[in-house]
Amino acid sequence: MTYERVRDISEFDLIRRLEATLPATVRNPPSVQIGIGDDAAVVSISPGQQIVVTTDTLNEGVHFRLDWTDWTSLGYKALAVNLSDLAAMGATPVLATIALSLTGDELVTDLVDCYRGVGRCASFGQIAIAGGDITRTPGACSITITAIGETRHNRVLTRSSAAVGDLIWVTGTLGAAAAGLALLQMPANDRRRAATAADILRNALHQPVPRIGAGRTLAALGVHCAMDLSDGLSADLGKILAASHVDAEINLFDIPVSGAVHALFRDQALGLALNGGEDYELLFTAPDWMSTQIMEGLELNGVRGTIIGHITPRAGDAPRIVGNERHGSRSVVRPGGFDHFQPG
Amino acid sequence: MTYERVRDISEFDLIRRLEATLPATVRNPPSVQIGIGDDAAVVSISPGQQIVVTTDTLNEGVHFRLDWTDWTSLGYKALAVNLSDLAAMGATPVLATIALSLTGDELVTDLVDCYRGVGRCASFGQIAIAGGDITRTPGACSITITAIGETRHNRVLTRSSAAVGDLIWVTGTLGAAAAGLALLQMPANDRRRAATAADILRNALHQPVPRIGAGRTLAALGVHCAMDLSDGLSADLGKILAASHVDAEINLFDIPVSGAVHALFRDQALGLALNGGEDYELLFTAPDWMSTQIMEGLELNGVRGTIIGHITPRAGDAPRIVGNERHGSRSVVRPGGFDHFQPG
Repeated sequence: MTYERVRDISEFDLIRRLEATLPATVRNPPSVQIGIGDDAAVVSISPGQQIVVTTDTLNEGVHFRLDWTDWTSLGYKALAVNLSDLAAMGATPVLATIALSLTGDELVTDLVDCYRGVGRCASFGQIAIAGGDITRTPGACSITITAIGETRHNRVLTRSSAAVGDLIWVTGTLGAAAAGLALLQMPANDRRRAATAADILRNALHQPVPRIGAGRTLAALGVHCAMDLSDGLSADLGKILAASHVDAEINLFDIPVSGAVHALFRDQALGLALNGGEDYELLFTAPDWMSTQIMEGLELNGVRGTIIGHITPRAGDAPRIVGNERHGSRSVVRPGGFDHFQPG
Repeated sequence: MTYERVRDISEFDLIRRLEATLPATVRNPPSVQIGIGDDAAVVSISPGQQIVVTTDTLNEGVHFRLDWTDWTSLGYKALAVNLSDLAAMGATPVLATIALSLTGDELVTDLVDCYRGVGRCASFGQIAIAGGDITRTPGACSITITAIGETRHNRVLTRSSAAVGDLIWVTGTLGAAAAGLALLQMPANDRRRAATAADILRNALHQPVPRIGAGRTLAALGVHCAMDLSDGLSADLGKILAASHVDAEINLFDIPVSGAVHALFRDQALGLALNGGEDYELLFTAPDWMSTQIMEGLELNGVRGTIIGHITPRAGDAPRIVGNERHGSRSVVRPGGFDHFQPG
């Protein structure tokens, strides 16, 4: 027990144990509406006004490889993933801070490119870059961004508020980022790497578009349950089901697979859309009577919304996703794959 | 130029060049009252209400050595230095997020100790720990904390508002943290390491007390200019002078040197107090007529205030600190030392 190392336990267990170490007054004071565990934390700063905070670190060699991504994309994406977390809460982004740990070997011009990418994403999100910290590290370089947004009257989207009967929605199309990563991992002579569609896919991976307007619109319409798709639809839907104590049934044929993924990956396209990560689209649930307003609200933001299934009562201890196929067969969908014919 | 590396230029130049890359709407939108360059950024979120944000990274091997500090102190200090930045702005701390990059080799029990330290400092500062991010790194472990506070009516303390004639104050006593560090660097058989005073000094280094109440009180009293002492009095006062376009004259014999430093370091004590870093006391300036209120306000927070000099008009291009010695001789004080007899 005493000699247990971080690598010996799951990230979930580590977070749980560290969190438990904090005094309740620190972990969960009255000002904290939503604490550790959702896409972002929500803290009241005055009656009727909350700030929403999220932080993400990208480490070289773990979250990015400089031979696969350019510095501009790195800067862009480091901020985009944080803005996506704010979008998933329905918050309006206000500012972000940047902490860079550098070895000293980096080219100054590369870092300027990195900030160019940060600036591009910040302009898109209408957010201020307000300060930061640049430090030396003996190890790999890393970038930690903390983004802060605001919301009023506790109008936030959480993972824990899916209700039985709710329809399950996703914005945009899925699978492109995972397909972009698959392209980068292919041998250099694979002809798919040179296809026109390949640019679309790599761009989806490197410069995802945080759904800020869509998230804010959903919160304003009264939607309660959402998260952003970072680990893949099957894994992330599982998190909503776990937090909300419900199950789900999805129509696999309704999943909006990116056309570029279809073009280059054919049979593997559905798997990439279902299990691939980093799309940074919104996954949300809402009662059927809201569907027209939601569709219109998303359209006003230039975003397509697709209904892919509905929430069902919890059947067992663990959350379960049943996948309907076009010709009536059913499967149990698991993160990373789906097992055919384990009937529910 | 193109092949210039980060290690080839100063941190100041790097920050300036990266900042210049950001579009003006991102770097300095109307909501940003105080941007990159002060102890923390100040951003308006509604009329009359500002949030104050600061971020700091501690990297293993650069900012801490695990053979010199215990994990509890590391967690405590990582938060304390951020709360000190908020204190230096006169803000009330509200919440903090923690981003940990870990190699996986760390003992879980050590990280629990780290969070225990974070929790202790958070309890002291009455601040919520609202979320974070734990990631793997192939390099050295690091901890990045972002702390968020609030203030009303733009009542903030800045580095750029020192005025000619203002008195210069410091809270508490100086030199203990630098002396604590000097002790750790001594050979194991140096008998000073075992002295009772040594514990006081190491504790000052590892568990500094952020002057939150004092900072808030100064802002409420109408003081405008302050910063926290992280790099040492001579260096940090130089930053106020540079930002405010003024010079200063200080009475070296009035500097409140820590008694424990005197006891163990004798002749070197003044040098440690003047040039040693990491005391995290407040350095501030205010007109003489406020002196009684300030002294009383600090006392209510259990903090001693000492007047050490006054602000003078800028004489040359670079800021200059003149140091008066007890018997009338004068010197020019420079960061890291003072050159005797370069008369002003």
